[in-house]
Amino acid sequence: MEPLDYHAEERSNASFDVEEMKIVWAGSRHAFEISDRAARLVASDPVFRKDNRTMLSRKELFKDTLRKTAHAVKRTIELNLSEEETHTLWFYVDQPAYANLHWGMFIPAIEGQGTEEQKQKWLPMAHNMQIIGCYAQTELGHGSNVQGLETTATFDPQTDEFVIHSPTLTSSKWWPGGLGKVSTHAVVYARLRTDGQDYGVHGFIVQLRGLDDHSPLPGITVGDIGMKFGSGAYNSMDNGLLRFDHVRIPRNQMLMRLSQVTREGKYVQSDVPRQLVYGTMVYVRQIIVSEASCALSRAVCIATRYSAVRRQFGSENGGPETQVINYKTQQSRLFPLLASAYAFRFVGEWMKWLYIDVSKRLQANDFSTLPEVHACAAGLKSITTSATADAIEECRKLCGGHGYLSCSGLPELFAVYIPNCTYEGDNIVMLLQVARFLMKTISRLVSGKMPVGTAAYLGRVEHLMQCHCEVQRAEDWLKHSIILEAFEARSARMSVACAESLSRFSTPEEGFGEISADLVEAAVAHCQLIIVSKFIEKLQQDIPGKGVKTQLENLCNVYALSLLHKHLGHFVSTGCITPKQGALANEQLRSLYSQVRPNAIALVDAFNHTDHYLGSVLGCYDGNVYQKLYEEAWKSPLNDTVVPDGYDEYIRPLLKQHFRTARL
Amino acid sequence: MEPLDYHAEERSNASFDVEEMKIVWAGSRHAFEISDRAARLVASDPVFRKDNRTMLSRKELFKDTLRKTAHAVKRTIELNLSEEETHTLWFYVDQPAYANLHWGMFIPAIEGQGTEEQKQKWLPMAHNMQIIGCYAQTELGHGSNVQGLETTATFDPQTDEFVIHSPTLTSSKWWPGGLGKVSTHAVVYARLRTDGQDYGVHGFIVQLRGLDDHSPLPGITVGDIGMKFGSGAYNSMDNGLLRFDHVRIPRNQMLMRLSQVTREGKYVQSDVPRQLVYGTMVYVRQIIVSEASCALSRAVCIATRYSAVRRQFGSENGGPETQVINYKTQQSRLFPLLASAYAFRFVGEWMKWLYIDVSKRLQANDFSTLPEVHACAAGLKSITTSATADAIEECRKLCGGHGYLSCSGLPELFAVYIPNCTYEGDNIVMLLQVARFLMKTISRLVSGKMPVGTAAYLGRVEHLMQCHCEVQRAEDWLKHSIILEAFEARSARMSVACAESLSRFSTPEEGFGEISADLVEAAVAHCQLIIVSKFIEKLQQDIPGKGVKTQLENLCNVYALSLLHKHLGHFVSTGCITPKQGALANEQLRSLYSQVRPNAIALVDAFNHTDHYLGSVLGCYDGNVYQKLYEEAWKSPLNDTVVPDGYDEYIRPLLKQHFRTARL
Repeated sequence: MEPLDYHAEERSNASFDVEEMKIVWAGSRHAFEISDRAARLVASDPVFRKDNRTMLSRKELFKDTLRKTAHAVKRTIELNLSEEETHTLWFYVDQPAYANLHWGMFIPAIEGQGTEEQKQKWLPMAHNMQIIGCYAQTELGHGSNVQGLETTATFDPQTDEFVIHSPTLTSSKWWPGGLGKVSTHAVVYARLRTDGQDYGVHGFIVQLRGLDDHSPLPGITVGDIGMKFGSGAYNSMDNGLLRFDHVRIPRNQMLMRLSQVTREGKYVQSDVPRQLVYGTMVYVRQIIVSEASCALSRAVCIATRYSAVRRQFGSENGGPETQVINYKTQQSRLFPLLASAYAFRFVGEWMKWLYIDVSKRLQANDFSTLPEVHACAAGLKSITTSATADAIEECRKLCGGHGYLSCSGLPELFAVYIPNCTYEGDNIVMLLQVARFLMKTISRLVSGKMPVGTAAYLGRVEHLMQCHCEVQRAEDWLKHSIILEAFEARSARMSVACAESLSRFSTPEEGFGEISADLVEAAVAHCQLIIVSKFIEKLQQDIPGKGVKTQLENLCNVYALSLLHKHLGHFVSTGCITPKQGALANEQLRSLYSQVRPNAIALVDAFNHTDHYLGSVLGCYDGNVYQKLYEEAWKSPLNDTVVPDGYDEYIRPLLKQHFRTARL
Repeated sequence: MEPLDYHAEERSNASFDVEEMKIVWAGSRHAFEISDRAARLVASDPVFRKDNRTMLSRKELFKDTLRKTAHAVKRTIELNLSEEETHTLWFYVDQPAYANLHWGMFIPAIEGQGTEEQKQKWLPMAHNMQIIGCYAQTELGHGSNVQGLETTATFDPQTDEFVIHSPTLTSSKWWPGGLGKVSTHAVVYARLRTDGQDYGVHGFIVQLRGLDDHSPLPGITVGDIGMKFGSGAYNSMDNGLLRFDHVRIPRNQMLMRLSQVTREGKYVQSDVPRQLVYGTMVYVRQIIVSEASCALSRAVCIATRYSAVRRQFGSENGGPETQVINYKTQQSRLFPLLASAYAFRFVGEWMKWLYIDVSKRLQANDFSTLPEVHACAAGLKSITTSATADAIEECRKLCGGHGYLSCSGLPELFAVYIPNCTYEGDNIVMLLQVARFLMKTISRLVSGKMPVGTAAYLGRVEHLMQCHCEVQRAEDWLKHSIILEAFEARSARMSVACAESLSRFSTPEEGFGEISADLVEAAVAHCQLIIVSKFIEKLQQDIPGKGVKTQLENLCNVYALSLLHKHLGHFVSTGCITPKQGALANEQLRSLYSQVRPNAIALVDAFNHTDHYLGSVLGCYDGNVYQKLYEEAWKSPLNDTVVPDGYDEYIRPLLKQHFRTARL
């Protein structure tokens, strides 16, 4: 029998080379190949099966995670995978596990904050997983305000040890992944006390569990913090709590690259520049932005494919009903998200360059771009993750009722994704940091200090405050220069308006608190501009492949104009565009949707997601949705028996009126 | 020991009488008392415990639901509860169960569509729960388009029976609650075929399972459709699938109030007006709107209380940090949701009156208000449920990291709430219906047909098209007349703009499809106006109690001005207000937040939610959040053992390097 493909016609209709687009999406042919191989490897391995994940009890799910992790380690050894290949394999296993924190936080913390001696001692064990570590920073009472952490590390010169202690309930470590049931060690952040003084928060390597029997060491209280959002999802992770009752560690387990405590208990700062930590921050946030594009691309792929299969209303003369993807209401919700996936992909790619650039500068003691880079990374982390979280839920709604089924893949994707909005910097706190940077940049313009990088446009603030948008016909909105200036002008004007508001308060701090909601909006405008401008820069690169560039042009315009439509109030009320020009943008947007429509399926095929990775009946490659939904239903645990457990006790007595006739 | 109350000071700071506000929220003293009693009854009964719900496996959860349902039935009999009391008790049990569909859909379907004879036969059994029924309408392939249902009911004059059949895979009934494992009967919607003709979709009573052994009857395939969004949540419900293989039922099991099939197989319509069904629709949607206010009030209560407990940053001289509720970024996200809860409550209350009014008119064969009422109910259903779904997730984010824990109550509340956006009318489809009504209303203005009710303002369209907002200072935005006219003008202008766009297309249908995204926005504007105007009408009633009215005034203004800020683009680009006036609204909004702030805790206390009903550690009445989070954590299934299941197989071998040394 011919293998069936419900999307075959859609696929053949595409006016571009989808294989070339796959390379563009992956970033390079090399990256595509690594990723493609790892995805297939995981998909074909029965241990990595995940379609039953939402039906498992917490304990089953956790054990399944332990099994997958051990198996992944085993496979990487057997196949002798490179670091890049290993990383990609973990990515496709697609199940949060302690190993993510071990490799992603514990090891980098030692690498970044340990001395050479410490690295030589701890890293080989960590790399071999002879010890497994986590990153114990957040506490029950403190998350964003790291400087407010309460755990103490008091130096005892008598014994040359630190005494790690949890002085209050709220000082309990809370949330660290891998801590609850697995980690043998942790990098613990605690207030360093020595010499009668509090030197603020520093990192310490602390062993938590015995290496032979895995039981918590004396003075350590440790456990899982309980169930989290959704079924499956992050419940595969043992986010943990941890309390210390005067736990002693040797002095040399303080991470001492940036500052030391001497044998005598004297606190000494090294001459390693503190700014180096920002390099790591940019690196981590670049990964988060890149993962935002992955998560968003999954949701969009599911919603797009299902929208092409699902038909509702609009049957003429008994013919088939209309594919819901043909409705403009569907397109106006879906296509901006499709465009966002590409936009986030490219801005994430650019952030890789940014990280390399800032790393080079830091090594050369050039800290000049740091404030701008820091604001940029914080802002992009914030808006891409917020937009992705919202978009996954929007994609679920775009799948109608069936999107609510776990087998659509969208509920779990949402549940597992949303912590991105909180960890590595709460998204609102991040935007306020961006806003602070913008206000500072503007205040320094007077003294002639020219902003750099993504803030360079603010150097043209005088022009941007009084420029007029030249759009006269809808098609004018297709010009990059016009889009860019509109976004620059909006951002500049919103920032300047905030700066003016601030000047009316008695202190800048009071003003900052009072108008913080406006500042957040200005920060969003600035970050959206960055994404639009990086998309446009991407288009100016040499992009090979039949029709690929045209598609990207369309998506870039959809991204920009749908943002403009969504934030019309800001564009119009700052006078950047007229209401008439706003209406023309909307008109152009509709016509862009018509151009995206015939290419929609191919544009999501270009993400190259396997059915395993997508984990969605609605988004399956061949589009055989209804058959798969039907088969999936029978796997429900409730279908194990015809008559449900509880019938005899709780249904039959009702039907037989036993509650009524019994003497009550 | 003194019972502790972390919110005591906040509570004593309130400048209004919270007990009086409770009455206002409940609607009447009578309603308050019924609700208060039922809530306490449920909270004090260990069978109704729900704090472990998210940890149960699907089978355990389902059995728990069966148990609670049987227990609730038993209690209502023992306590001899009235219908109103029974309904309220079910409400506070707060766990979706087959009984909701039995009482809420199956019985009403027979009441509304059955003949007197049918009612006499079926209703007593249903009321006694000697039979348990569900409402089998939606199919795998058809939800919104009810007229496209595929299940057939073919009359066989030979035997005087209907043959119910599922001709295709997509015709499988899919989603009906209670169908999967419990219902003995269903009202099945199927295409009536007789006399060689298809008479469209009608309802039939079909027995599904044997009353003695509960096994499916011959020709019936029935089962659960699988896991749904989240843990706990709607997984307590056995949403089901159902297929018929030529199942025969007696002719008199077609619901024949509106049309009959005679013994000879002739299709006859009765003279009962079809419009009567709209009465039921208004009734059901009124309940949904009222439940939106309940769900929203829970989320807001949790986020408000926790925001007053949680402190982060801003410590001065070693003093306590700032309560996060004091940050304007928090207030600007939270207080509009608090205001929305009250706004939805009052519009829901008004819809009760609307239902009574339209019912009276229908009985008197007055169908004049029906289109307006229908549009109004559809629109309010849509925007209140969409806003509530978004708001619950926003409240979760407002609780920071801890909101992601199941014990915050917010993940499950979100998961259980969101189907409201889909069932009883998909929210986008609903808005398109509103838009159709608006377009029709405007096109009829030319012929002098004056709109009524909530659309009456369109009769003043000429004035609204050219009026100018008179706001000069921020305080001017506190005038009801000014707010109302701004909302009326926005809505009228958006509708008129759509009507003008439509006229440019060759057919209205083509235009309607093309600009449907704009039509949806116009419909939203219309519905928001309704809510604002009903809130203002509420304020014009006699509201007793110290300070209560002032609070409601503030909330009404917060609701209206935060909407205005959110949709600034529409207000400004239609020329209803100037950018300057928009900025003044924003300024006024900030000052309103300062007035709401000291009353925030009391304003959520007024919802009178028990800790049981809230089901949230973060939202608990006494605010003892951290202690409770800590205690809750230890209940995690993973904490049943110190060393996790799987350690020996999957962790120890890693640590001991067994994968490395083994020959691979």
